[in-house]
Amino acid sequence: MSTKSALSEAEGTRPESGINPGAAKRIRDSRRKELVVEELVNGILKGSKTALGQAITLVESNQPKHQEKAARIIEKSLPFANKSLRIGITGVPGVGKSTFIEAFGSYLANSGKKVGVLAVDPTSSVSGGSILGDKTRMETLVNHKNAFIRPSPSGDALGGVAKKTRETIILCEAAGFDTLLIETVGVGQSETTVHSMTDFFLLLKLAGAGDELQGIKRGIMEMADAIVINKADGDNIKPAEKARSEFRRALHLYPAKASGWTPKVLLCSAYENTGIEEVWNLISEFQEQTKASGHFSSKRQEQNKFWLLQTINEHLKRRFYQHPKIKELLPLQLTALEKNETTAFEAAALLLKAYEK
Amino acid sequence: MSTKSALSEAEGTRPESGINPGAAKRIRDSRRKELVVEELVNGILKGSKTALGQAITLVESNQPKHQEKAARIIEKSLPFANKSLRIGITGVPGVGKSTFIEAFGSYLANSGKKVGVLAVDPTSSVSGGSILGDKTRMETLVNHKNAFIRPSPSGDALGGVAKKTRETIILCEAAGFDTLLIETVGVGQSETTVHSMTDFFLLLKLAGAGDELQGIKRGIMEMADAIVINKADGDNIKPAEKARSEFRRALHLYPAKASGWTPKVLLCSAYENTGIEEVWNLISEFQEQTKASGHFSSKRQEQNKFWLLQTINEHLKRRFYQHPKIKELLPLQLTALEKNETTAFEAAALLLKAYEK
Repeated sequence: MSTKSALSEAEGTRPESGINPGAAKRIRDSRRKELVVEELVNGILKGSKTALGQAITLVESNQPKHQEKAARIIEKSLPFANKSLRIGITGVPGVGKSTFIEAFGSYLANSGKKVGVLAVDPTSSVSGGSILGDKTRMETLVNHKNAFIRPSPSGDALGGVAKKTRETIILCEAAGFDTLLIETVGVGQSETTVHSMTDFFLLLKLAGAGDELQGIKRGIMEMADAIVINKADGDNIKPAEKARSEFRRALHLYPAKASGWTPKVLLCSAYENTGIEEVWNLISEFQEQTKASGHFSSKRQEQNKFWLLQTINEHLKRRFYQHPKIKELLPLQLTALEKNETTAFEAAALLLKAYEK
Repeated sequence: MSTKSALSEAEGTRPESGINPGAAKRIRDSRRKELVVEELVNGILKGSKTALGQAITLVESNQPKHQEKAARIIEKSLPFANKSLRIGITGVPGVGKSTFIEAFGSYLANSGKKVGVLAVDPTSSVSGGSILGDKTRMETLVNHKNAFIRPSPSGDALGGVAKKTRETIILCEAAGFDTLLIETVGVGQSETTVHSMTDFFLLLKLAGAGDELQGIKRGIMEMADAIVINKADGDNIKPAEKARSEFRRALHLYPAKASGWTPKVLLCSAYENTGIEEVWNLISEFQEQTKASGHFSSKRQEQNKFWLLQTINEHLKRRFYQHPKIKELLPLQLTALEKNETTAFEAAALLLKAYEK
């Protein structure tokens, strides 16, 4: 802090240094910020997990100062991103997702892949159900030099979590992680989100006991590029084989995918470590086929465009529904609608008029 | 037109009649409009198909004068609406939709039901594929005193068609039509639209020759409350039965519906008029079950709410994407996104800032 005289504050005058103290501080701050940014980007590009972790923390932060830094880091990382295979993995709680990811991720890491594991689960902060938050699991993978595991970002809304996850993907890719496993819980909206940011979508299922009927959200089966029936071991092998042919028949009834890919059904036991290699072979086949057809890159382009438009649309809606006038009028119109005193279109016109005034 | 003097225009003065000529014309016009509205509403409430047809023409018109009248007619019809059973019918071209609707509609009309047939097909203006536009079909039903058939409204966007169809439903109901068949072509977005304005959703299918795999949009099978395999006659009966058990197995793998209803698979031959009654029995069973559980009315409430929010969201998006600045900047940002020079979120932030300035 400098002692200010009335004179030094007069317009057009400057302290001797030729620069005012506020501006000097801003410049120092901005240099310091730039230093942090460059240091982290350098670390990321060298594959440092520490730098990657710190940068992701900035991405996940809701503080404007952190967000500014995060934006600069992402900007500088972008040219080195987009090079991994992004695999979405979903399944209801109890299907053995973390055991599967441990087995599958270890197989990949041992074959020399650099594996990043991320989770999308906006409900975890409420339910405490984030599997990756449970430190006792994935013990082997978490200590593997080729693996980087990051639990689900806490976020109030799926939109926020989605943004954070997409940006984390960019950072992981810049850090050289070439195979990303993006996990979600399979019971909510988050599957569509994960589906729209991955190249391959894997649905984990269980055989028998009606498990395959319960809990999974409608529409998820149609998104799957592969269904993997987990826990196909011991007494469970026969039911798993039966489930496999049922799912095969069911998938057969779906219309063909835009990718030209026909979804496959596989068996595995993450516990006994069987069938894991087959899953990877299938995904490799998918990658080869869709890269050759050009679908792989065109899908990524579409996903980018989807997220651009999605972000805009979410923002426009948020602005509307959080407007004080709308907050006041919407409940009244909904009541009128319930009583059949208005139509949906009349009510919408009224609300839009109030908003735009 | 009256000759105006400077005096007669002065503030606070009036012509001798105590009312100025412009206002008089407006009042006469508004009285005339009100007469037309009342006449049509009276006709509709008496079940006049002519009045109903004229009112729907006003609903479908894009002229502001017509739209004003339409809005008044709907307002006055609303207390008499909401009383029909709304059945959505979809299937790819060639599945025999019009033959089915002819047979099913005639069965209903002969049993004393008042049947309205509407179509939602925003593509018909392009493809000329609107089945109801083809006057040579549905010859029996079109002349039945208990039936009212209305071809697809022409509309550039599905949103417009949806609004017109929803309003036409209200008018048909006010006119006493208690069973509405709302048809769509099964290849585009219109199924979701029809699904969100009907109580029961029926998917027509064909057996054999891989027909069940082709053309139908992903996700439609999950919406179906019943799959009806048409053309189950002659040599086709065996394949139809085989298809029935395949679809049953496939539906079995889907998660339970919110309504508590388990979708069923039936066979019919619209051509030989077999299996038609069974379709109606199934729909009656559905109606009884969901009315008893309260799902029937709660689903309608949700549909109303959906349309209110949908209309608002569509409007907000239209305003944004048609803004001159966005029209200029969006293509540039999309190109930058394709070249990985920006992220979806950065680009969105930039566009929103430009829009809100």
